[in-house]
Amino acid sequence: MAQKPSIPKGTRDFTPVEMAKRNFIFDTIRNVFRLYGFQPIETPAMENLSTLLGKYGEEGDKLLFRILNSGDFLSGIPSELDGTTDSAGLSGYISEKGLRYDLTVPFARFVVQHRNEITFPFKRYQIQPVWRADRPQKGRYREFYQCDVDVIGSDSLLNEAELVKIIDDVFRRLNIRTVVKINNRKVLAGISEIIGQTDRLTDITVAIDKMEKIGLEKVSEELLVKGISDEAIGRLKPILLLGGSTAVKLDKLTNILSDSEAGLKGVAELRTLFSYIESFGLSEMAELDLTLARGLNYYTGAIFEVKAIDMSIGSICGGGRYDDLTGIFGMPGVSGVGISFGAERIYDVLDHLGLFPSESLESPRALFVNFGTKEEAYILPILTTLRKKGINVEIYPEADKMKKQFNYANRKNIPYVVLAGEAEISANMLTVKDMASGDQKMVSVEELTKVLSVD
Amino acid sequence: MAQKPSIPKGTRDFTPVEMAKRNFIFDTIRNVFRLYGFQPIETPAMENLSTLLGKYGEEGDKLLFRILNSGDFLSGIPSELDGTTDSAGLSGYISEKGLRYDLTVPFARFVVQHRNEITFPFKRYQIQPVWRADRPQKGRYREFYQCDVDVIGSDSLLNEAELVKIIDDVFRRLNIRTVVKINNRKVLAGISEIIGQTDRLTDITVAIDKMEKIGLEKVSEELLVKGISDEAIGRLKPILLLGGSTAVKLDKLTNILSDSEAGLKGVAELRTLFSYIESFGLSEMAELDLTLARGLNYYTGAIFEVKAIDMSIGSICGGGRYDDLTGIFGMPGVSGVGISFGAERIYDVLDHLGLFPSESLESPRALFVNFGTKEEAYILPILTTLRKKGINVEIYPEADKMKKQFNYANRKNIPYVVLAGEAEISANMLTVKDMASGDQKMVSVEELTKVLSVD
Repeated sequence: MAQKPSIPKGTRDFTPVEMAKRNFIFDTIRNVFRLYGFQPIETPAMENLSTLLGKYGEEGDKLLFRILNSGDFLSGIPSELDGTTDSAGLSGYISEKGLRYDLTVPFARFVVQHRNEITFPFKRYQIQPVWRADRPQKGRYREFYQCDVDVIGSDSLLNEAELVKIIDDVFRRLNIRTVVKINNRKVLAGISEIIGQTDRLTDITVAIDKMEKIGLEKVSEELLVKGISDEAIGRLKPILLLGGSTAVKLDKLTNILSDSEAGLKGVAELRTLFSYIESFGLSEMAELDLTLARGLNYYTGAIFEVKAIDMSIGSICGGGRYDDLTGIFGMPGVSGVGISFGAERIYDVLDHLGLFPSESLESPRALFVNFGTKEEAYILPILTTLRKKGINVEIYPEADKMKKQFNYANRKNIPYVVLAGEAEISANMLTVKDMASGDQKMVSVEELTKVLSVD
Repeated sequence: MAQKPSIPKGTRDFTPVEMAKRNFIFDTIRNVFRLYGFQPIETPAMENLSTLLGKYGEEGDKLLFRILNSGDFLSGIPSELDGTTDSAGLSGYISEKGLRYDLTVPFARFVVQHRNEITFPFKRYQIQPVWRADRPQKGRYREFYQCDVDVIGSDSLLNEAELVKIIDDVFRRLNIRTVVKINNRKVLAGISEIIGQTDRLTDITVAIDKMEKIGLEKVSEELLVKGISDEAIGRLKPILLLGGSTAVKLDKLTNILSDSEAGLKGVAELRTLFSYIESFGLSEMAELDLTLARGLNYYTGAIFEVKAIDMSIGSICGGGRYDDLTGIFGMPGVSGVGISFGAERIYDVLDHLGLFPSESLESPRALFVNFGTKEEAYILPILTTLRKKGINVEIYPEADKMKKQFNYANRKNIPYVVLAGEAEISANMLTVKDMASGDQKMVSVEELTKVLSVD
C-alpha cells in the first residue's frame, strides 16, 4: 500500500537548485583551504559512544543520536535491569555507537589514532555533516554540515594570522562584508586574575559571552548571582568597555594587566597577531573585542568570531587556539588552532542579500531540442565534441512537443537552447537561442563552442 | 583518564593521502555526470523506518542501522511487552529512524515527495555514504559511498545509450579498461515464456545471475532444485550459450523469441540501444551477455554491468531500467533508468594497477621554508600573489631546523620547496628546489609562478 513519504523532522532534502547554492559555498571554502596548504580528512558518521560521551557536557550527551546495537540487542542487558524504566541507564547496554556530534572530537580522536601516519604540524580541513537531537526550529537542524580547518602541532601565531587571512579570502569570494572579532583567553584569564577572581574564569567567560545578546547590565547581574563580588564587577566593567583603536586598547591593557603574567602574555600574542594582520592589509576587517569570550572551555589563546556586516544573524565563523584537545585521548600537550565556517548561516546570508551567482557549475549550459531520429544522429556527435571541451550539455531524450522541451530548459534554468532542423543540418549549422534575451542566431559548431564556453 | 581511541568495526578514517585518491574518483565521476546534464541532490542520512523497511527483503531489514529514539524511549513501549526478549519486536517501539541503506529508495521517496518542484525527465546524480550492518570483511564496509545517476520520467532508449557513454567516459578518464555487459529483462522474460516457465522469471533470473560465479552446470542444478523441469532447462541452456557477434545473437534471438511479445520487445530495445552504441563508436567495449540477469527484481528493461579487463574483482558499475520504482510511495507508472558506480572497488582497481595520479588537487605545490621574522615578511606577500593565481602554497609556520622543514615537505609529498634567505631577498629573487630531481635555481616571482602552475 502506498505510504505518504516524509523525512525525519529537522532533516532536509536538497534539490538541484539548493545543491548548486550549497556547493557554491562548500567549493569556495574548500578551494581557499587548499590554497593555504590544508588537506582533507574524513571520519565515520558513527563513533563509539566512549569517544563521544562526556565531551559535550551533560546536555550534549542527551543530544547524541545513538545507534541501536545490531541483532539481538536485548541479550546484553544485565538481569537487574529487567523491567527498568530508566531509558538513560538502559541505553548504555543496547547502544554502543552514536552519530558524530561535531568535527572537533572526531578530529582529536583521529590525530591520536593516526599520530604515526600524519605529518606535524598537521593542517587539515574537514567538511562533513553532524547530527544533534536538538529541538528543530528555524535555522536549526538535526543534520547539518560543519566546515572545519585546523593546524595542530604548532604554537606559531602565524597560524592564527593565516586563519584570519582565510576568513577574509572566503568571505571576499562570497561577496559577504564581514568583521572578524578577536580576543585572547589569556587576556580574559589576566582580567579574572587582576579583579581577584582567578578561579572563576569559567563563570566570567560564560557570562561575558552573553554580552552582545543581553548587554553589560544583565551580564553584571549574572555575575553577581554567581557570587562574583560587586567590587570585582566594578573593576571588570571599565575593562570590558575599553575604547580606542586596537593599538590604544593594547597599550591600556598592558597597564591594566601589568601584574598578571598570563594577561601580559595574551597581550603580547595579540600584538603579534595584529601586526601580521596589518602586514596582510586586513586591519580594516579585524577588531580587538574584549567582550568576546566564546563559551567553549577548551580555548586557551586567540579566539575569533566573524559577523556579517549587512545582516544580523549571529556569528558565521568562529574558533580559536586550544592547548590540549588531544589530551582526553591520551596525547597531552599538543597545541592547535582552528576555525569553523557555519555553512547554514552563510547560506542564509547569501540568500537574504541575493548574492548567489545566477549560474552554477551544476547547470547544463545548453539543451539541444530533440526533433527525432535523423536530427539526433546529427546532434549526438556535436554533443560529444562539446563535452570533450568540458561544456555541460544535454539533449532532450525524446522528440516531445517543442513547448515541453523549452519548458524543460526554462525550469532547469538552462541559459541556451540549441535547435537543428532540416535547414541547419543541410547548412551544417545550428540555431542557438539565448533564453534570457530571446535572441537567436545560426552558428557553426566552432561558434557554438564559443557561445557556450564559460569564461 | 585517557582512553585508547578506536572507531566502530567496518568503518574507516580517511587520511589526506586516501582522501586525495578518493576525491580523484568522485571528482571524475561527478564531472562526467555534469557534462551530460545531470544535477545533484542530497537526502538525509536518516530516513523514517517506514520508508526503509520492506524495501530490501528480510535480510536487508536486519542490516539496517536503527537510531534509538531520543529522550525517554522506554515510555513508548506497550505494557504487554514488559520483560520481552524479542529484540526485533521491541525495536519498532524504541526506534523510528534508520540510516540510509542505499540511494535508490531515498531517491524514489524524494521524487514522490518533491514531484511538484522537480522537472521531468528528472536527471539526478547522488554521491553519498550508505550504511549496512553487514559482517565486515575485506572490501566490505559498514559505511561506504554510492555514486548513482538516474533519469526518471522518460522511456527513451537514448537515456540508456547516454549512460553507456557515461560509463565509457568515466573509465576512460580513470584509465581503467572495461567491458560493459548488457542484457534486457524483457528478453529474459521472453526466454522464461518460451521455455514454458513464465511465472518462474524471478527464480530463473536469480539462478542465471550466478552463472559467472558458479557456471552453467551449477545453475542448472539450482533450477532443478527450484522445480524447473529438465526439459525447460534443456531448452534454456543453448539460449544462454548463444554465440556470435551482437548482431548475430540478436538475429538468433528474434527467431527463438518469435512467439513472445515481451521477448521481441526486448530484442527490439537491444537493437536500438546497440545501434546508438555503434554510432558512439563504442561497439568494442559493449557486449550483449544473455547470462547477465542482475538479482534485483525491480529491473524491467535494459540491464548493465561493467567489468575491469585488467583485474578480476566483480562488477565496478551496474544498473538498469525500472518501470515502477516510485510505485511503493504512491506514484505509479514512472519509468526510469540508472547506474551506480562502485567507488570502493574502483579504488581497489586503481590502486592495484597503479593508476592513481602522483599529484592531486589536494596537495600544496610548494612549501616556503621559514627562516624567521624578516624572511617571513619577504615571503608573505609572495604567498598572497601566488594564491591569487590559484596556486596552493604554504609556509612552514615556524623557524624550525631546515631538515625538519624539508622532511615536512617530503612527507606531505610537496613537489617544490622555496627558500628566501639574505641573498635572495637582496636580489629580490627566490630559490626553488624540485624535490624529485633535486635541481634548484634562483628565480623571480614571475618565473616561480610559471614553475608552480599546474598545466
